[in-house]
Amino acid sequence: MALTQTETESLTKAVDGSMTLAEGLFDRLATETADGGGVTRASYGDGEQLAHDMFAESARDLGLDVTTDLAGNAYYTLPGRDRSAPQVMTGSHLDSVPKGGNFDGAAGVVAGLAAQAAIKAAGIEPARDVTVMAIRSEECSSWFRGRHGGHLGSRAALGLMKPEELKNAVHLGTGKTLGEQMAAYGLDPEKLMAAPPHLTAQDVAAYIELHIEQGPVLVSAETPVGVVTGIRGNTRSRDGRVLGEYTHSGAVPQSHRHDAVLAGAELLTALDRETEAVLAEGGDIVFAAGKFGTDPDMHSLSKVPGELNFTLDIRSLDVATLTRMRECAESAAAEIETRRGVQFDFGGFGVSQPTVMAEDHCRLLHEGCQALGISAIDIASGGGHDAQEFDRIGVPSSMIFVRNDHGSHNADEAMEIADFALGTRLLAWMLADAL
Amino acid sequence: MALTQTETESLTKAVDGSMTLAEGLFDRLATETADGGGVTRASYGDGEQLAHDMFAESARDLGLDVTTDLAGNAYYTLPGRDRSAPQVMTGSHLDSVPKGGNFDGAAGVVAGLAAQAAIKAAGIEPARDVTVMAIRSEECSSWFRGRHGGHLGSRAALGLMKPEELKNAVHLGTGKTLGEQMAAYGLDPEKLMAAPPHLTAQDVAAYIELHIEQGPVLVSAETPVGVVTGIRGNTRSRDGRVLGEYTHSGAVPQSHRHDAVLAGAELLTALDRETEAVLAEGGDIVFAAGKFGTDPDMHSLSKVPGELNFTLDIRSLDVATLTRMRECAESAAAEIETRRGVQFDFGGFGVSQPTVMAEDHCRLLHEGCQALGISAIDIASGGGHDAQEFDRIGVPSSMIFVRNDHGSHNADEAMEIADFALGTRLLAWMLADAL
Repeated sequence: MALTQTETESLTKAVDGSMTLAEGLFDRLATETADGGGVTRASYGDGEQLAHDMFAESARDLGLDVTTDLAGNAYYTLPGRDRSAPQVMTGSHLDSVPKGGNFDGAAGVVAGLAAQAAIKAAGIEPARDVTVMAIRSEECSSWFRGRHGGHLGSRAALGLMKPEELKNAVHLGTGKTLGEQMAAYGLDPEKLMAAPPHLTAQDVAAYIELHIEQGPVLVSAETPVGVVTGIRGNTRSRDGRVLGEYTHSGAVPQSHRHDAVLAGAELLTALDRETEAVLAEGGDIVFAAGKFGTDPDMHSLSKVPGELNFTLDIRSLDVATLTRMRECAESAAAEIETRRGVQFDFGGFGVSQPTVMAEDHCRLLHEGCQALGISAIDIASGGGHDAQEFDRIGVPSSMIFVRNDHGSHNADEAMEIADFALGTRLLAWMLADAL
Repeated sequence: MALTQTETESLTKAVDGSMTLAEGLFDRLATETADGGGVTRASYGDGEQLAHDMFAESARDLGLDVTTDLAGNAYYTLPGRDRSAPQVMTGSHLDSVPKGGNFDGAAGVVAGLAAQAAIKAAGIEPARDVTVMAIRSEECSSWFRGRHGGHLGSRAALGLMKPEELKNAVHLGTGKTLGEQMAAYGLDPEKLMAAPPHLTAQDVAAYIELHIEQGPVLVSAETPVGVVTGIRGNTRSRDGRVLGEYTHSGAVPQSHRHDAVLAGAELLTALDRETEAVLAEGGDIVFAAGKFGTDPDMHSLSKVPGELNFTLDIRSLDVATLTRMRECAESAAAEIETRRGVQFDFGGFGVSQPTVMAEDHCRLLHEGCQALGISAIDIASGGGHDAQEFDRIGVPSSMIFVRNDHGSHNADEAMEIADFALGTRLLAWMLADAL
């Protein structure tokens, strides 16, 4: 049952009206968590807690039900007509990377609150409860070292966190384990592990997350909004190595060398060619070797390099492309090993599955853009998001990207509030009735 | 005037007899300058001084004239029939790299003394004075940082050292300047700079240096002796850099990236292809990028690399090949810069001229091998040697390489004394009469 033309117009006006609330929240957040030009809101740390306190107060002011779960995630609920039906959820995270930008994460929670305020103001009563989730510790890779599964807050809520993560993950700031760090903020991690998941696929009809784009695609396309088609999976070599032989770079003929750097350069060139081939075929892929280098304790201008260390980060929406690239790396390495007398070690090279966004949601998002006169394009998400955890447990999930310049995870994030308003209109339209 | 058959046979026997002297010198040297499995004979340092004292004593025992110059180089002279004619010289250096091998350098001085002893023992009186030069500080690149022209001992003797090198070169062990370091061993660097060159092209009819091979060519060819055709020149980038842009390795499409590592890998692949082309055409070349890497303070698995630092060391006997390779690097870089939106900086990229050994010497060396029944091949020198400084001032110069396993500049140098005896026979034959 779609909104009427009048309802849609009222909702749009109400969203624009709620931008005062949104700007106020963004401004307070930027001021109160300011750090060296950017913001710092540590996962299970002071900045994140401050944001949670601020947003809970704002949600209460809007007359929403405010609850939390055992992992410290917060839920702001606008009741629907059928309170026993599975709820429609939106949200994002309130933590940030160290000295990051103000919008990565927070924009999704602000948009959720602004949408709820607008739905109320437009006098629309949604069919089901509409809940905004303020999620903990999405940026945990920047805050916790040691083995953990990432997206700690959402995974804890969805029953995906394993007990050993509480011990293995160690906070880079405090040196405390995840369990100790949670306890420092009044949480009871043992109780969390013993309890059933706070959210199951039965409780949640749909999850939709608004987030700033972390790349330049929408800026380049001069388009304010992106309908996310999926979240790229990846295949990665975290501790890649080529072993050759250190020898005299003047006296040893080329044919007698085992040059680790030339071998590594050939591998990259082969992967770069395969990447271009995937793109030429219309496939989705990105590829980089972010760390790549000789050993500073051993290398010299006048030595043939005998060792090279590297990482590979290959991402795609298509698991077949990830497999193809891994196979390309392995077969290129085997050929180079034979020819150059070197040894490659990829040290693992696992595949993490891509997430495909709910087809129904994507169709509805495009209908919404049509109804609201918003220009949008399809876009892939290169970074991971909490939405993929909801998808993992079987909740139909989707994402809206808002145009943002200068990428994310830095102080220079630049989202225009006018673009944010368009994204929030689309989110409100989806939450009010479409989902 | 060639040696008679009988003289040649006497000389050969006498050289074999002088191997007792040679082995004694090698053994004492290895014992008295031993350091961590190898030997350490610092340029203008204690180990070098010890070797000079030991060899001067040995030269006096052989009845040779022993003199030194203002740079501390020593000269052991066997008088010839015409004492006023320009002398024939041989020699090499007595210093070593830190924890290096016993033969790099010393073998040339030991061979000279053994050849002089054998010429005397065989009752041959050479036409001209035959002088062995025990040279200082050839391994100065391993001992002195700061701007200096290398091969300090021979360049000082030949008038090629500039006054500023005395101040600019700083000893890595003592922190003293070259001038201070020389003074610590009783030398007077100011007097050295004020005096005319100790040796000029008018004083020296020929210079021939025996040295261990520093690569695997003679071992691979199963040949004990190499006739050096030239010393490779080089074109080098010591502080190469590619500047791109650090961005998110998942969210930024491939077409929007400025990846410094992929740019650098392409450069190496282009230079590797050109190297193979030179070799296929029968040209002489070696090429390596000994240092190559991203910035450890900035790089990450999940960032597109925005900077890469590298060195290039390209060597050849042919200056046209060096120019061709430098042009290849520059044109490949220009093309990659345009396509990838990155910036290359080679930071200099000068060409140092190759040295071509005296054609007459090379012909005579092959005649000597024929006369003496020694199996030899032509070989290029990849490393630099004092012989190139003699060539530079116009003295006809040449080198004999002796087979040696495991390269040089390490404790594992492995020259067989039987191979050394063959090289010394050839050297003695050249010094006795041929040159």
